[in-house]
Amino acid sequence: MQSESERRLLDAAVELFSDLGFQATRTREISSRAGLSPAAMYVHFPSKEDLLFRLVHDAHESTLRLLADAVTPHQDPVDRVHALVHAFSTVHAERYRTARIAQYESRHLTPEHHREVGRIRSRIRHTVRQEIDNGIAQGAFTIEDPRIGVLAIMSLGIDICRWYSPDGEFTAEELGSINADLVLQVLRADRTSRNRGIAVTSP
Amino acid sequence: MQSESERRLLDAAVELFSDLGFQATRTREISSRAGLSPAAMYVHFPSKEDLLFRLVHDAHESTLRLLADAVTPHQDPVDRVHALVHAFSTVHAERYRTARIAQYESRHLTPEHHREVGRIRSRIRHTVRQEIDNGIAQGAFTIEDPRIGVLAIMSLGIDICRWYSPDGEFTAEELGSINADLVLQVLRADRTSRNRGIAVTSP
Repeated sequence: MQSESERRLLDAAVELFSDLGFQATRTREISSRAGLSPAAMYVHFPSKEDLLFRLVHDAHESTLRLLADAVTPHQDPVDRVHALVHAFSTVHAERYRTARIAQYESRHLTPEHHREVGRIRSRIRHTVRQEIDNGIAQGAFTIEDPRIGVLAIMSLGIDICRWYSPDGEFTAEELGSINADLVLQVLRADRTSRNRGIAVTSP
Repeated sequence: MQSESERRLLDAAVELFSDLGFQATRTREISSRAGLSPAAMYVHFPSKEDLLFRLVHDAHESTLRLLADAVTPHQDPVDRVHALVHAFSTVHAERYRTARIAQYESRHLTPEHHREVGRIRSRIRHTVRQEIDNGIAQGAFTIEDPRIGVLAIMSLGIDICRWYSPDGEFTAEELGSINADLVLQVLRADRTSRNRGIAVTSP
């Protein structure tokens, strides 16, 4: 459970880490921006690295849940991948500050924390790969090398946080649709046939 | 022209900035790794930020030249874009440390230096866009929105430096080919017709 103080500390850390970088942010700035004393911060996060770990860990965990939630309502592999890529891309725009920290500041984690985040990243990649393999098995995608599909989904999605701006050319929603369509092209998706795997009555 | 001392300082800065980050690197560490005194470093780079600017500026300038050199030997728009994407993607793997600094540390540049780099970035985007527009005009690509082609080329290329490792799944060369093929798909390239724009003799 997240207390109100914890939430304020995490919000302050997102702003400061994404503006200044983890190294250049002083612990005292985080507590003061959150309206807390350094001692009160210490109760929740004994170190600046603990705060970074919590942000990076939670960002990855919530992405993993987001992908599971996105595909659940759909049966068709094309619909599932479209929904997955849409959700993955949109969140990297909507939460671009947190995503930047998760991507570019994670080298400042302790080796143990780094490994822990690495395990969630592997599960995210595994989820993506499984959806592609599933679609190939059902004849919905004819891409030859499924690793290239994973690469395209990850790169097109994650890279959004590097350059996205709320005042930019595309909205988060538009980027979700653009990438979902691009990925279906890359996977050579058969977008005409639906209800794969369901027996068709003979004419 | 680059002196031997300058080259050593730039090499040391690439290693330190990409390992520790710009903020966490101390000027003294750079000079000592380059085998120079702090005073000798000062002659070439009065500040750590000057060194960062030189790295980021040169990385962008050399990418711009690389793209121009890549397309020059080709006439056909499909071949030109294939060569451009191949070169752009390969360099983000081969020079992934420098590319990471160029992408993720550039917020530490002074506003003036930031704008100067921004102008080269605009020229890179413009080069990419021009090649796509040229291919559309010649009927080689049937993508509806050329901005999506630019987005795919930039994201798939630049994101490589985030995750690339020389011990990884794909070589730099393979990534060049993978991305070049992906982009031609995204642009809906007509890969069968060559010699566009050259009059065909009647049968």
